[in-house]
Amino acid sequence: MRFTKALVLIFAVLFVFSASGFAAEKPVRWRLAMTWGPTLQPFVGAVENMAAAVEKMSGGSFTIRVDASNKHKAPFGVFDMVKMGQYDMGHSASYYWKGKDLSFLPLTSMPFGLTGSETYAWYYFGGGLDLSNKAYNKHNMYSFPGGNTGVQMGGWFRKEINSLDDLQGLKMRIPGFAGEVLANIGLTVTNIAPGELYTSLERGTIDALEWVGPGMDINMGFHKIAPYYYTGWHEPGSEMQFLVNKKKFEQLSDKNKEILRVAMRVAAYDMYAENYAMSADAWDQMIATNPDIKVMTFPEPVMAAMKKSNDELLVNMKAKNALFKEIVESQEKFQTKARKWTEMSEYSYVRDNLVK
Amino acid sequence: MRFTKALVLIFAVLFVFSASGFAAEKPVRWRLAMTWGPTLQPFVGAVENMAAAVEKMSGGSFTIRVDASNKHKAPFGVFDMVKMGQYDMGHSASYYWKGKDLSFLPLTSMPFGLTGSETYAWYYFGGGLDLSNKAYNKHNMYSFPGGNTGVQMGGWFRKEINSLDDLQGLKMRIPGFAGEVLANIGLTVTNIAPGELYTSLERGTIDALEWVGPGMDINMGFHKIAPYYYTGWHEPGSEMQFLVNKKKFEQLSDKNKEILRVAMRVAAYDMYAENYAMSADAWDQMIATNPDIKVMTFPEPVMAAMKKSNDELLVNMKAKNALFKEIVESQEKFQTKARKWTEMSEYSYVRDNLVK
Repeated sequence: MRFTKALVLIFAVLFVFSASGFAAEKPVRWRLAMTWGPTLQPFVGAVENMAAAVEKMSGGSFTIRVDASNKHKAPFGVFDMVKMGQYDMGHSASYYWKGKDLSFLPLTSMPFGLTGSETYAWYYFGGGLDLSNKAYNKHNMYSFPGGNTGVQMGGWFRKEINSLDDLQGLKMRIPGFAGEVLANIGLTVTNIAPGELYTSLERGTIDALEWVGPGMDINMGFHKIAPYYYTGWHEPGSEMQFLVNKKKFEQLSDKNKEILRVAMRVAAYDMYAENYAMSADAWDQMIATNPDIKVMTFPEPVMAAMKKSNDELLVNMKAKNALFKEIVESQEKFQTKARKWTEMSEYSYVRDNLVK
Repeated sequence: MRFTKALVLIFAVLFVFSASGFAAEKPVRWRLAMTWGPTLQPFVGAVENMAAAVEKMSGGSFTIRVDASNKHKAPFGVFDMVKMGQYDMGHSASYYWKGKDLSFLPLTSMPFGLTGSETYAWYYFGGGLDLSNKAYNKHNMYSFPGGNTGVQMGGWFRKEINSLDDLQGLKMRIPGFAGEVLANIGLTVTNIAPGELYTSLERGTIDALEWVGPGMDINMGFHKIAPYYYTGWHEPGSEMQFLVNKKKFEQLSDKNKEILRVAMRVAAYDMYAENYAMSADAWDQMIATNPDIKVMTFPEPVMAAMKKSNDELLVNMKAKNALFKEIVESQEKFQTKARKWTEMSEYSYVRDNLVK
C-alpha cells in the first residue's frame, strides 16, 4: 500500500509536469547525404547551417549528421538513398534526376526562365512547392528549395564569339538540357569531370565551359586561361534542393516538422544571399588580378538561335510528359507577370544608375 | 518517513526524466507591437507567420501576441515601448527613428542605394547586422531585418514630367529623406495622412505622391486618377525591422533565442518573396482595368539633379553623425562591388530577354 501511494504521487507529479509544458520527445538522430564534396561552398555551409539550427532549436533532441560525397561515395545516388530510407534526407539539385522523370528538370532552372527572386516567389507564392511535391511524392519523398545560385554565367570562352559561325564545332563542356540546346545550333558538347576541366581548357581539348558564377568559379582558375566571360541565359536562377524521405518526415512530431521546415527554408534563402556576396567579392578579386578578362554578351543572332532551339526542344518534351508540361507552363505563366514587375522595378533602377 | 521515501522516489524519477531529454522550460508569453494597422499586407502576414512559427517550433511553450496599431494606439511609439519593455518586441521601419538618431535612416534604405538582394547580402554577409545592432544596443534593443519591399516606385503623377522645369512648385506627398532631396530641386513637399491621399490627389491638392509598389498601391486606387507611374530611385530595397528588447532577449533560453532568430529571418525573406508575387499580380490587374496607365522613367537631367541633391545632403549628414557615416560608407563600399555583380548577372539577363 505504501508503494502504491508513492506511485500515485509520482504519476500525479509527472502529470502536472506534462501539463505545464513538458512533452515526451524521443531524441531524433537523422543522417543527410549531399551530392557535394566537403568543401563546395556555399552549398555545404547552407546544409551545415540548417543542421545546426535544427539542433539548437530542438534543444539538442533532433540532430542531423551531414555526410559529404567522399563519405557515402555516391554523389548521384542521393535520390535513391533517400527514397529507400538509407538516408533520412539529402541535398542535391533536382535536374540531376531528369533521366528518371523529366518533371524534375524545371524544378532547378530552365533556360530563359525565372530569376532567383522570381523563383522564390513562384515556389512559395505561385504554386511551385505543390507542383514539386506532386513530382516527388511518387517517389516516397518531399522536396524543398535548398538554396539559389542566382543567374549562372554563360561560361568562359577562349575566343570572342561574334557570330553563329564562330560557334560551329566549338567544343564546350556544358551538361544537361542547356547542352542539348547548344548541340542543336552546332556546338560539340562534351562532359568532363570537374577535376580535369582546367587542364582540358588550358590544352585546348575544349574551347569553352560553363560552371556557376564568380563566387564558385574563382577557385577553379578558369579566368586565368579563358578571358571572355559570357553573361547567362541557361540557368537564370538555379535552385538546389533538400530531399526528405516521406515516411521519416511523417514520423516526426509536429514540432520537429516545423523546426525542419523553417531551418531548410532559411538556409536556402541564406545561401542565395551568401552567394550574392561571394560573387561580388570574387569578381572584384578576379578583375584585380586579371584585368584582361571581359564580361561579354552573345550577339543577338546567337541569342535568338539559342532561344529558338530551346523552344523547339520544349515542344517535344511537353508532349512526352504531362507533369513536365504542367510545371513548365505554371512557370511560364508566372514569369509573364513577374518579369513585367522585374523590368519596372529592379531592372529599371539598375539601368538608370549603371556603374560608370 | 514514508513521506520522505516517496519524495526521494519522486525526485529520482524526475531526475531520470530530465536527463533523458526533458528540460524545464518555463512558458514564455511575449507581446509584439506593430506600427501597422491590422490589414496592411504583406507586413502583417509576415509578423503573424513569425509568431506562428515560434509557437509551433517551441511546442507551444513560447508564444507571441501580435498587436496592431488600432490596439496599442501608438504606431510611432513602437520604438519607445520596446525600449522601455512595455512590449517585448515590435515590427516597424528603422527610418521612422531618424529624428532620434540619424544612424537609423540607412538601415531601411537610401536613395540610389542597395536593391533587395543586395540589402540581404549586406545585412547577413557584409557586416550590416553588426552595424545595425551598434545603433540599437545604445537603446537597450536588438534589431533584425523584418522583410523587404523590393524597389519602391517613384510615385504616381497626374502629368508627365519632361524636364526639371516641370517639377518646379509641383506639390508631392513624399515623406522623409527623399522628400528633402526633392525639396532641394524645387518641389513643394507635403505630408498627408494616408486616409486623405486619394481625395487630395483627385482634387489636385497634390499633383503626385509615392506609396510603395503595385502590390501595396492597388488598394489605394491611385492608378485610377494619376496615370503616370514613375520607376524608383529613392527606396530601392526598403527593409522593415523587428525590434527586440535586449534584456528580454537575454532572458530567453538558448533554444528560444535560436527559434526567435530563425523565425524572424525566414519571415523577413518570405515577405520579400510574397511582395514580389503580389506586385506581379497587382500590376497585371491594374493594367487590365486601367490600360491608360504608363510606366515612365524620369528624364536623365531630372535623375542627375536628384542624385546631385542627394549627394550634397549626404555630405552634411555624414559630418553630423559618425555612426551614420560608418553605416552609409559600409553600404557604399559593398554596393560598389555588389552592383557590378548585379549588372553582370540579373541585369544583363533581363536586358537580353526583355518582354516584347
